[in-house]
Amino acid sequence: MTKNNKTMPSEKNILITGSVAIDNIKTPYGEVNEVLGGSATYSSFAASLFSSVKVVSMVGSDFPADYLKKFTDRKIDISGLKIFEGQTFRWTGLYAENMNEAKTLSVCPENLKDASFNIPSHYKNSDYIFLANTDPDVQSEILERISVSGPVLMDTMNLWINSKPESIKKLLEKIDIMLINETEARLFTGKINLISAAREISKMGPGTVVIKKGEHGALMFMEGDIFSVPAYPVEEVKDPTGAGDSFAGGFTGYLAFCGKKDNYALRRAAVTGAAVASFTVEDFSTKRLESITQADISVRVEKIRQMLKF
Amino acid sequence: MTKNNKTMPSEKNILITGSVAIDNIKTPYGEVNEVLGGSATYSSFAASLFSSVKVVSMVGSDFPADYLKKFTDRKIDISGLKIFEGQTFRWTGLYAENMNEAKTLSVCPENLKDASFNIPSHYKNSDYIFLANTDPDVQSEILERISVSGPVLMDTMNLWINSKPESIKKLLEKIDIMLINETEARLFTGKINLISAAREISKMGPGTVVIKKGEHGALMFMEGDIFSVPAYPVEEVKDPTGAGDSFAGGFTGYLAFCGKKDNYALRRAAVTGAAVASFTVEDFSTKRLESITQADISVRVEKIRQMLKF
Repeated sequence: MTKNNKTMPSEKNILITGSVAIDNIKTPYGEVNEVLGGSATYSSFAASLFSSVKVVSMVGSDFPADYLKKFTDRKIDISGLKIFEGQTFRWTGLYAENMNEAKTLSVCPENLKDASFNIPSHYKNSDYIFLANTDPDVQSEILERISVSGPVLMDTMNLWINSKPESIKKLLEKIDIMLINETEARLFTGKINLISAAREISKMGPGTVVIKKGEHGALMFMEGDIFSVPAYPVEEVKDPTGAGDSFAGGFTGYLAFCGKKDNYALRRAAVTGAAVASFTVEDFSTKRLESITQADISVRVEKIRQMLKF
Repeated sequence: MTKNNKTMPSEKNILITGSVAIDNIKTPYGEVNEVLGGSATYSSFAASLFSSVKVVSMVGSDFPADYLKKFTDRKIDISGLKIFEGQTFRWTGLYAENMNEAKTLSVCPENLKDASFNIPSHYKNSDYIFLANTDPDVQSEILERISVSGPVLMDTMNLWINSKPESIKKLLEKIDIMLINETEARLFTGKINLISAAREISKMGPGTVVIKKGEHGALMFMEGDIFSVPAYPVEEVKDPTGAGDSFAGGFTGYLAFCGKKDNYALRRAAVTGAAVASFTVEDFSTKRLESITQADISVRVEKIRQMLKF
């Protein structure tokens, strides 16, 4: 996506790993059951707006065929999506009035016993890798099996910060860009101040740390430099699920699309991520995200620009 | 404050009313007792960096003379500061780890019995009025007694929202610019979404609504247009007391200084407010705020500009 909206397909490709799941979600705006979800789903849908995407993940044999088709309709390569005998991972979440944090009501199964992934040979050389939120040991294992030329990005969540902090720290040594939400950055580092938290994370490896703040946008820390992007204002947030994953997917997708990783490219990637996330929350599951184009995103990127002018 | 730092004293003057108080504050960085505080104090100190300021408030006969001198040293007109026989209003507050919200441990006296203000005759014609946080009936009474040519601004807090919401609503009909913090905007309007909350407030009168979000900066809503300003990044927030009042004072001071009230002036005022507030929180009470100049603020305004470039 260039400033004048002339779009050129990028030659760069992105490998994304994370969860592909089935969600049950209740928010003040309604309730949906057995909908498509998962960190790799949202982030790959978002990234595929800009670049070619390959997914490594797994689903059970109960996974609906029409959900698989949503991936292939977007030209997302799912030859690395393993279908195992058994039940797809399910997440049941509730958003109370404030919509900023989901309460996890249940996850099922609680642990994936079979964590052996199929990584097709044409995945082995990837330009970019985004390790969307999943078990950090799985993220590490996959990263080790791939030869990557461009930046490696990752995300994580409180579950892993609490259960496997050492695995995250070890993984961070190999990460170029860490995306993490505000609460989790504080939890992981023990620092309340976000500048201090970002510095702590940066010390562990990543030169760039993006702290996602939901309705307050995001702060990006790049070797002493700070960029602030607001959330695009959405008055009716129907379902916040996947906003952070969409931000990260849009961010990675844009970086791969522009083929650069300088300060300007990172800033533009963050604004793109914010714009993509603003669509995701406008409807349940991936519904709104599925319907948008680069042109829609450009409109919101320009509106964000207007919000920052002084 | 102009872009190239050439400063011209403004002919416009601002009347500020609100509390002048003595605070006892405890934060994770330390504890101070019997320090200067109050909404009119912080906001008049901030506004006086840009414009001439007259204060209407009251203190008890125990109010230290050197605190009075801090006002006059800044050329703040305190002929409207009534000194009554009795004790100055005292606030004792505690900030826990997260520093975003103070816990009020005590206020003393709980109610000001004598609410009759002295308004000197040379106060009666004012260019701008900022009704800093205090009893909305007092705000209304003072506003009625002043003839004002420029915009009228106000702030309030949860105490008054809970106890006198109708007084606030009535007052809002006469207000041009409402400044209110995030939590209080939600409390006052019953709207979780800040865009909806700002619209509700705007319907009651003010064409411009500024929602202050502490470490997340502020959102300003101006007849359909939205401006987002981040907080200037401060790694060591020693004492958040007065940050919102300093923001409002810097905002009003800059507006009066530039003598305009268009969209660009409002945006620049909000960034100025954010820059001033970032100094206030770097030390206890008004200590840091007392030591800064327009030039210091300009540096942070430009740093904020860099944080928003993409």
